[in-house]
Order: sequence, then C-alpha cells, then structure tokens
Amino acid sequence: MTITGQNLIAGEWSGNTSQGFSATHAINNEPMKATFADATPAEIEQAIMRAKQAFNNYHQLPVKIRAKFLRNIGEEILALGDELINMACAETGLPALRIQGERGRTIGQLGLFADLLETSEYHVVIDEADADRQPLPKPDTRLGYLPLGVVGVFAASNFPLAFSTAGGDTASALAAGCPVIMKAHAAHPGTAELVARAIEKAIKNCDIDAGVFSLLQGKNYAISSQIVTHPDIKAVGFTGSERVGMILQKQINERAEPIPFYGELGSVNPQLIMAGKLATNATDIANTLVASLMMGQGQFCTSPGIWAYIEDTNAGDFESAASAAIADTQAGVMLTPAIAATYKRAVEHWQSISGVELLAMGQAGVEHFAQAALFATDFATFKATPILHEEVFGSCALIVRLKNLDEMVDFIDLLKGNLTASIHAVESDLEESKQVASLIAHKVGRLIYNQMPTGVEVCASMNHGGPFPASTDLRSTSVGSEAIRRFQRPICYQNMPNDLLPAPLWR
Amino acid sequence: MTITGQNLIAGEWSGNTSQGFSATHAINNEPMKATFADATPAEIEQAIMRAKQAFNNYHQLPVKIRAKFLRNIGEEILALGDELINMACAETGLPALRIQGERGRTIGQLGLFADLLETSEYHVVIDEADADRQPLPKPDTRLGYLPLGVVGVFAASNFPLAFSTAGGDTASALAAGCPVIMKAHAAHPGTAELVARAIEKAIKNCDIDAGVFSLLQGKNYAISSQIVTHPDIKAVGFTGSERVGMILQKQINERAEPIPFYGELGSVNPQLIMAGKLATNATDIANTLVASLMMGQGQFCTSPGIWAYIEDTNAGDFESAASAAIADTQAGVMLTPAIAATYKRAVEHWQSISGVELLAMGQAGVEHFAQAALFATDFATFKATPILHEEVFGSCALIVRLKNLDEMVDFIDLLKGNLTASIHAVESDLEESKQVASLIAHKVGRLIYNQMPTGVEVCASMNHGGPFPASTDLRSTSVGSEAIRRFQRPICYQNMPNDLLPAPLWR
Repeated sequence: MTITGQNLIAGEWSGNTSQGFSATHAINNEPMKATFADATPAEIEQAIMRAKQAFNNYHQLPVKIRAKFLRNIGEEILALGDELINMACAETGLPALRIQGERGRTIGQLGLFADLLETSEYHVVIDEADADRQPLPKPDTRLGYLPLGVVGVFAASNFPLAFSTAGGDTASALAAGCPVIMKAHAAHPGTAELVARAIEKAIKNCDIDAGVFSLLQGKNYAISSQIVTHPDIKAVGFTGSERVGMILQKQINERAEPIPFYGELGSVNPQLIMAGKLATNATDIANTLVASLMMGQGQFCTSPGIWAYIEDTNAGDFESAASAAIADTQAGVMLTPAIAATYKRAVEHWQSISGVELLAMGQAGVEHFAQAALFATDFATFKATPILHEEVFGSCALIVRLKNLDEMVDFIDLLKGNLTASIHAVESDLEESKQVASLIAHKVGRLIYNQMPTGVEVCASMNHGGPFPASTDLRSTSVGSEAIRRFQRPICYQNMPNDLLPAPLWR
Repeated sequence: MTITGQNLIAGEWSGNTSQGFSATHAINNEPMKATFADATPAEIEQAIMRAKQAFNNYHQLPVKIRAKFLRNIGEEILALGDELINMACAETGLPALRIQGERGRTIGQLGLFADLLETSEYHVVIDEADADRQPLPKPDTRLGYLPLGVVGVFAASNFPLAFSTAGGDTASALAAGCPVIMKAHAAHPGTAELVARAIEKAIKNCDIDAGVFSLLQGKNYAISSQIVTHPDIKAVGFTGSERVGMILQKQINERAEPIPFYGELGSVNPQLIMAGKLATNATDIANTLVASLMMGQGQFCTSPGIWAYIEDTNAGDFESAASAAIADTQAGVMLTPAIAATYKRAVEHWQSISGVELLAMGQAGVEHFAQAALFATDFATFKATPILHEEVFGSCALIVRLKNLDEMVDFIDLLKGNLTASIHAVESDLEESKQVASLIAHKVGRLIYNQMPTGVEVCASMNHGGPFPASTDLRSTSVGSEAIRRFQRPICYQNMPNDLLPAPLWR
C-alpha cells in the first residue's frame, strides 16, 4: 500500500505533503521516504464539525452495531498483515515480536469493549415510583449514561498500536459512543495512516457515518492547541511526557467550559524490596528487575525506575547481581532520536550529581543507540535532589539505599504519584509490608506484590492510572473495561415512558 | 447554647471574634447579635495539617465505625432541637417547615451513606489468577477504591443544613474516608456553629480523631484561596454562583497537582411544554410551574427559570393563567440582602431589554423583600441576548415563545448545561417529545417527564449534576449514594495476599 502522507478527514484524504515532515527510520537513523502533511486549521475544523454532526446518530445506534464496528476495526487491522508490522518496526525500532504482540493486544482491546457493549452496556440503577410514600410520592428514577461528545485522542510514542490510532483511548471512546479526533504521533505517522485505513474500511463495512473518525498528522503544536481548546471537543486522552501534558492541561484550563483531561504523564514505578526478600532472593530479584527494566528498552510506562531496599548484609549481593546484569545488556535503538538524546542527557547529568554513584552501564552500540544505566544513592541525597524523583524515560534505574523502615516511610512520602509500585517480600516481612503497603497505596494506581510492574493485564479489574503525574485524573483508568467510563457521564431519567428511555432502562 | 463565633479547628475552638462579622436577620433585616471570627491562615494550616494526620487511620477504620459515626452526627443534629431550627430560620428567612424538612433530609443523607458502607462499600471486581494462560500466566487482579485525602467543602447559601456543615458533600466525603475542611457560608454562621458542635459530639462519642472535621468561618476570600490551593487538599466540593465557582476553579487550575473540583454553579432548568400538553392542560401546567418557581422564593438549584412552548391557540390561556398565578404571589424575604439586591437588579435589567415583555409581577412587600416576576420573549430575542440564557437566582421566570419544532431544536442548542429539564407532554406529542428528549438530554443531568424539577430524590439512581455550568465536573452527582464516588478513586491490587488487602477484596 502506498503511504499518501495525508490526513483522513471524515472519510476524505486531504493535505499537501510537499512541505511535510517524515519519520526517522529507527535502525538506520535516516529519514523515511514518505512525507506527511501537517493538518491545517481548516482540516481540523472540518474534522471536528463532521464528528459533532455524526455524534447524535452514532451514539444512538444499537450497541450490537457499535460492537460489530469495533470488532471489524480489529479484523481490518489484522488484514493489513506484515505491512503494518514492518512499518511499525521501522518507525519505532521495536522488534517484530513485540509489535505482533501489541497488535494482538490492540485487537483484543477492541473486542473487550465490543463484549462489554453486548453484555452490560453499563450498570443500571433503577428506583421505582412509590405513589404511597409519605410525605410525598416517590417518582420513578433511572440512572443511565450518555457519551460526552467528540473526544480528542493523542497517540503515544511508545505504543504505536495499543495506545495510538486504534488503541485503548480510541476503542473506549468509540465504544462509549463518542466520535474520535485522532492526533497521530509524529514518530510513527506511516503506522497511523495504515491503521486509519483499517478504521476507514470498517466504517464503510458497517455503514457508519465517516465523521466518527478523523486522523490528523502533524508536528506543529498549534494542531494540538486547536483540538483541545475547540468548544466541540468534550474530553481529551493523552499519553506522553509531563512537559507536553501540562502544556495541554494549561490550554484546557483556559477553556470556557471545563472538560475531562485524561493525561498519562509519567511514573517511576518504585520497587520496594523488603529485608526478608533480600536475604533469600537477592540475585533473583536483581535479575528480574533488570529484565523488567529492559523491556522495550525501558520505554514502558510501567518500567521500574526506582528500586529501594533497607540496607543489610545481603545488599551487596543484590547490587552486584544487578550491576552484572546491566553490564550484560546490549545497547538498543530508542523510539526517536529526540527521546534517545533526552535519555542520554539525563544519564550524563545523573553522573554529575554528588552522592549519586554509577554502578553499571550496558554495552555500547552505534552512535544513536542507548545504553542501560544503573545508579545508586542514599536517602539524604534522594531527599535533597528532586530531579532524582522524576522519570527518566528509558533503561535507567536508581537504587535508593535506605537505613531502616523509618527511612522507607519517609522515602514513600517523597514520591510523586505513580502508575504502579511493587512490594517484594517474604512471609517474615509481613508486618513491615503491611505498613509500607498502606502508605504507598496512596501514591499508586496499581499495587503489586512480588511481581514486576511491566505487563499490564487488559481486564475489568485493571487500573492503569494513579495520582499525578501518573495521571492528570486519578479517578480513571486508561486500560481495561473501566476505561469506557472516561467518556460517559450519568443522567437520571425521571418519570420517563419507555418510548423516551434508552433500552437498558426500560420498565 | 451560646454561639461563640469561633472556628472549630480539629476539636479546638479558636479565633478572636472582636473584629468579626455577623449574619443578617432575614426577617427584620438587621445584624444579628453574635459576631464570627474570620479563620486565620494559621488556623487553616492547622486544620489541614490535623486532617492530613487523621486521614490514614480514619479511612482504615472498620466501615461499621464510620457508619456509626455518620448516624451519630444525625442523632446529634436532631438533639440540637428547636434551637437549630430557629437559628436557621432567622439566618436564612426560610420557613420553619422547610428547615424541618431539610433537617430530615440531612439526617437521611447521613443514614444513606451509613447504609451504603454497611451493605456494599463499593462494587468489587476480581479477576483471579490463571497460571496456565498462554502466552503468559494471568496474575490475580482486584479492583478496590481508596479515598482521595482531605476534602475542602464550601457550604451553600440556599441549603443551610442539607448542603452545608453536615450536608451532602460532608456526608459523602466522611463516608468515603476523607477528612473534611468545611468553609461555612457567611450567611448562616450560627447554624454552621450549631451543626459543627453536633459533629464535634459525634467525634467524641465514636472516639474518632478530631482532625477529621474542622469548621472555618469567614467572609474573607483569602480563606477560600488558602483551602483550594493547599497541596494537602485533594478534592473540593462547592455549591454557589458561577462567578465565585469560576474564581475557585481558576485557583485550582494553578495548582501543581490537578485535583477534582465539584462545583455546582447554576441552572435555568428549562421546561419544554409540547403542543398537545398545552392544548389539554394549559391552566394546570401554568399553575404548577408557578408553584414550583415559588418554592424557597425561587432559590432552589432546580428552580424552573425558562419555560418554552411552541405557539398555538392555547398559548394565551397558558400565559394568562401563569400571569394570574404570579400576580397572586406574596413578596418574600431572600437568603441574604446581597442576593435580594442582585435579584432585583436582574429583574430591573430584564425590563429594559427590547423584545422582553414583563407579563406579571408578584405583590410588593417591605423594602428588603423580593417580588416574583414573569417575562416573555420570542426566539429571535432570546438568541440575540445571552444574558437571558443565564440563571437569575430567585423567583423570576422567562417564557420563550417558539414558532415551531425547528425553533425548539435551535432553542435547545443555545442552552448552557443544566441540572434538570422537564418535558411536559401528552401521548399525541410522542414523536416531537422523542426528538426533543434526545437533544436536551445532552444539556442536563436529569431529564424529567411531566413532573416539576424542584424536589430532588435522595436515592441511588439520582443524578444531581450535569454539563457546565450546572457542574464543573459532569461525571459526578452531588445528591444520592453515587456522590461518595467523587471522593474515591480506583486502585488495582495485583497478586496481593489477604493480609495486605482491604477486607472487601479478600480471596
């Protein structure tokens, strides 16, 4: 399939690519052939206007049709075959096996929401009328849910399929009944175009209004501003850096009408290793942490960035094993040259911080590849150095050596919000684990016991969110079936006849 | 009981009342005897610090104890007896019967949340482990909920009990496990002090940490700023004007950490009267609307402020009946002299708007009493005059005469967000009602058929919220059992042993 480099505006491809941008080939670090057109203000306006027009009919379609549409998007993505895999690998540098797995997850997510629509669109709450109630009769009241309207979604650099064009945000918004304005990530625009074509086909196959989906390409920040400040955009989903996320948040704050902003902005995913665990499993836990850190070259939202333990005689074994495992790692390509450069600057900066010790670095590779890095520090340095509390996006981890449980408590207090934390412990750590769990629970969206944070289950009980900056809205999850709730809101129907009620609320 | 005029800071009464403010006696329009101390920055800081310290123990108390505490607050409010009723009547001008009813609702709300805690703290979602799953084993994941932390609550002028010191926001926050920093409304500080004493007693009776509740008196805006921008405040509930609400929203937007802001800011509660209804019930509907408008002198959040019908031969009967009913109404006292003055200015201003016709005014009363007012206009004037789209807090209603269904559709499109709307219709209006319902649903939190908007059921299926400015967060309700969700957020526990899990999630 030839990549056109154009924008998909409610079923029409448009845009002049002659002044366009191109993605970088991850492996050879050179610009790829296709050029992509920055979406123009008129295209964005048209996309949002068509989405608004499509909204009322789309969300009132029978849920079976919406479910079929979601599944068909998955089928059309699969039908793109190896072309999609090859394109995503070239644009992101992620290996084929990973991209194949991610494609499976993407299709699985679409299916999960389709199943959800068909089994229980939402939890129905009904309080029937009671004409005899004193002092006043009780009216019939029924709680339903309405979709919010047109949703703006920003693709993530690190999940070119599962958190991009037809990823979790798009799937949950479309499932909720919301048209989607998708801002593609400039690091994988070709992948975005291919997936948008799959959605375009599914729209035709299922006879859906083409206004429900538009794909906007672009490197220009004005595109994002125009989307998030548009009065007809009723919610925004974003996965990316705290810096960019907070620019969007600020623009959203200036709107006349407040809207939900679901920004997933960063997480160090602290790993707390209790004394008993260190005494019995020092080498195992070190090796497993390094393996978790190296997944996707450390570019997972749930990558374990800070490891804290209470110093004892087994600490040396742990650090030696971890250092050896890091030293063994191969250099790898990162998602974009800019991400690699930022990562390298951070690792270099950490080496200059007094009180921070470089324990090990991974093997060197070609110029644009990144090496893993393992640092260690003490609590006093950690406390005094806020930069160490921030996520370094990539395969860099910091060991924080704590003297005792009190320091671990203080360490937890210093942490910003996170997507996850793990407690690594054995039976003998129970009392300390209890105390630590009850404190760190307030800093995370998912609390894990003796497992690694990487690998997020897509299921009903998942929560992928958490206190700021893990999420700008800690009441929401971006993974799992509850993600659909982000794009719905309650409405109470009082004394309504069936003719005016949505089907799930009928008497 | 002598009113001290002081602030209750985590169990200690403090504050110098000599420079204090006083409330106005609603009936005689003169300052009342007691003076109240503006909370100082040090008192506010102390209240929030003590609340933060109390949080972790409070929310981990067995739910039975929290339920007992909520019920005991209700018992202690009842034990205040007529002193509370008299004080609230004097400070607000609301009649004793209404205040007694509101006390019942307040105690009922506390009981509702107590029941909720004892029956189903929250909906548990569990996905058990599956060691045999391919390609990777599935971990055990369990979705629970954590309270957000210390909550700032701002009392409402128009519900001195049910939306003030121990009102819906306080009850739902305490039920969720969140300590409350209560900013009393300066229009009924004596009522606030009495209710705070009931809470203080319940805290002692139930052996709860006194940090879970503080009452801050004040007329000084800096008090509000200090509360909403404090890093240890994790959510804010507010009921009041759009002007003040948006000042708070702006301050909250400037925080480093975004937090939920639940502001209920205004609603015109449009009443759509369909042609068949007008043909069969013109006089009835007119009289019922006027009765609804006059509840609490039009100072209900759900007061019907705009009535729209499609012109036909019965419109004259409707307007005559409504005008006659308005002309019959007695003048009444409003909640505060400032609210009365604002109301009178708005009514005066509307009389000067070209294309707006004054149909009737209620009877005149003493100088500081307010008269009801009924206006009428056509669609073109309504469209061209944005001030007519805004809530006038008080017993003033506007009839919008529409030529046909198309104009009704356009009228709905112009409306801002509302707490409620009613459709008044008969069988023959069905097709038009369907179309109108599907459009106006997106403008309201509660959609009502053939009933008045005033009177809000406190039950599980209630939604008291809606699109902006009805609420700054349309995903939430401030009335009914779902209100507790505003102060909780999800957390996923992965692979956790029972010892580290909250009881509802045990294996």
